[in-house]
Amino acid sequence: MNIKPLADRVVIKKLEAEETTKSGIVLTGSAKERPQEAEVVAVGPGAIIDGKRCDMEVKVGDKVLYSKYAGTDVKVNGEEYTILKQEDILAIVE
Amino acid sequence: MNIKPLADRVVIKKLEAEETTKSGIVLTGSAKERPQEAEVVAVGPGAIIDGKRCDMEVKVGDKVLYSKYAGTDVKVNGEEYTILKQEDILAIVE
Amino acid sequence: MNIKPLADRVVIKKLEAEETTKSGIVLTGSAKERPQEAEVVAVGPGAIIDGKRCDMEVKVGDKVLYSKYAGTDVKVNGEEYTILKQEDILAIVE
Amino acid sequence: MNIKPLADRVVIKKLEAEETTKSGIVLTGSAKERPQEAEVVAVGPGAIIDGKRCDMEVKVGDKVLYSKYAGTDVKVNGEEYTILKQEDILAIVE
Amino acid sequence: MNIKPLADRVVIKKLEAEETTKSGIVLTGSAKERPQEAEVVAVGPGAIIDGKRCDMEVKVGDKVLYSKYAGTDVKVNGEEYTILKQEDILAIVE
Amino acid sequence: MNIKPLADRVVIKKLEAEETTKSGIVLTGSAKERPQEAEVVAVGPGAIIDGKRCDMEVKVGDKVLYSKYAGTDVKVNGEEYTILKQEDILAIVE
Amino acid sequence: MNIKPLADRVVIKKLEAEETTKSGIVLTGSAKERPQEAEVVAVGPGAIIDGKRCDMEVKVGDKVLYSKYAGTDVKVNGEEYTILKQEDILAIVE
Repeated sequence: MNIKPLADRVVIKKLEAEETTKSGIVLTGSAKERPQEAEVVAVGPGAIIDGKRCDMEVKVGDKVLYSKYAGTDVKVNGEEYTILKQEDILAIVE
Repeated sequence: MNIKPLADRVVIKKLEAEETTKSGIVLTGSAKERPQEAEVVAVGPGAIIDGKRCDMEVKVGDKVLYSKYAGTDVKVNGEEYTILKQEDILAIVE
Repeated sequence: MNIKPLADRVVIKKLEAEETTKSGIVLTGSAKERPQEAEVVAVGPGAIIDGKRCDMEVKVGDKVLYSKYAGTDVKVNGEEYTILKQEDILAIVE
Repeated sequence: MNIKPLADRVVIKKLEAEETTKSGIVLTGSAKERPQEAEVVAVGPGAIIDGKRCDMEVKVGDKVLYSKYAGTDVKVNGEEYTILKQEDILAIVE
Repeated sequence: MNIKPLADRVVIKKLEAEETTKSGIVLTGSAKERPQEAEVVAVGPGAIIDGKRCDMEVKVGDKVLYSKYAGTDVKVNGEEYTILKQEDILAIVE
Repeated sequence: MNIKPLADRVVIKKLEAEETTKSGIVLTGSAKERPQEAEVVAVGPGAIIDGKRCDMEVKVGDKVLYSKYAGTDVKVNGEEYTILKQEDILAIVE
Repeated sequence: MNIKPLADRVVIKKLEAEETTKSGIVLTGSAKERPQEAEVVAVGPGAIIDGKRCDMEVKVGDKVLYSKYAGTDVKVNGEEYTILKQEDILAIVE
């Protein structure tokens, strides 16, 4: 992976529908914002607030739920990633 | 339960209409935002503000009222949950 | 009463039109947001700001004026209540 | 007067047109928000900011100019009052 | 002058077109907000921020440029004034 | 120059098209906000934040790029100036 | 380069499509904001927050991804640059 997100941004890789099924999570929510499952592939150093850097709460390898409409898509070496702010990640899936 | 909400997010499970009746609460409010009753199934570690983590005010097992339109729905192992921020929870029902 | 409001929320019970007349208050304001008289039935522990909990300014039993369009209505054991933030309460009526 | 405004709210009583003329103030401003003259009849304890209560700058008896569209009207014992935040008061008239 | 502005408000008196010419300033800006020249006739005590009162930067007698659409007009003893916040004053003209 | 900008405001004088060419800068950006080159002719004392005055980053004589739609135009002694906040200045050109 | 960005602004130079291909990054996102690859050519001194200057996280020479619609375009000596705030940079590409 050659993308280093800045501040409190995270790079994630969307999980395929199959894998989503395996972990037993089906995402619903037609009337609401639909979440998406993904794996964290890169984590920024954390935002700097009042001169102090805040630790990030997710780490590389975490499987996360995030809002489908959050972030920006990029394609690196033929694979698609999404760069988003940590606050757009809803939860870690274990 | 295998969802760990981040920061000040909470995972809740909507209570069925029957249970709602049992606790004696009927939710109204056609002209206003209608609240919903639910049980807390997972609680985030709390938001970090000015470098300090804030304690959460709800805990697993609490029955809560929340705004029906708040949060994001997910389905895990066939059961539906909602992930929302603690500030969208109106009250604990006892 | 079995509703414990969170943070700086308050549960109030709208006063009947008769009682409103008794206390000598008639609420007007067609062109503006019309206030409503109510009695406080439950008070949250107070918001946490910069790590400190702020004391609430209203207490159970207070009669208050609040903006009619503020808050969320719930019905408990056949009685209607409104859950709102303390900042939506305009004044205490004595 | 039996209304105790909360936080930084103030209860004022609009001055009649006659009195407005006596003090020599005529309020204009068709294209802008038109101010109104009033007398302060009750003052809240002041807002709490960062855990400290801020002193109020107006006191009972002050004649003030305020924005006509600010605040909420109530009628107590047959007399009309307006409840508004102190920041909606423009100036004290002496 | 019998108007005491609150907080960081200032009372100003618009300068006549003749005086504007004398000081050599012609105000333009059809596509932008057009500024106006005026003289300061009363100055509030300054806003209170974090419990401390901030000194005002203008004083009575200062000639200032301000945004024409800022503030509220009042007429006192037959003369027109404008009450506005200090932050709506662009510059002092010397 | 007889205009003293307040707080973090700056008075600038637009540079003519010829001068723009000399410094080798051509401003583009039809789909975006188009910047303009100008010379700083007066600098405010700096904004006061948390009771402390912040130093300004530009000084009289600096050539700067700024957003064309920022600020307010005034004409003094037949010359046009723009008063804008320092944050609307994009860069110093050397 | 003769542009010194102010505060937390950065001057970047868009990378040509060929170079984008070389680094293996193809930018997608029709439904979302499309990012762009660029090289940092000048970095501001950092924003001043609470009286302290914050260090910048990017440096001259860094290749970065940024939101295509962020910032302002300028042409210097025949070459096009974009001036944007550091927070509009998504990630450093290595």
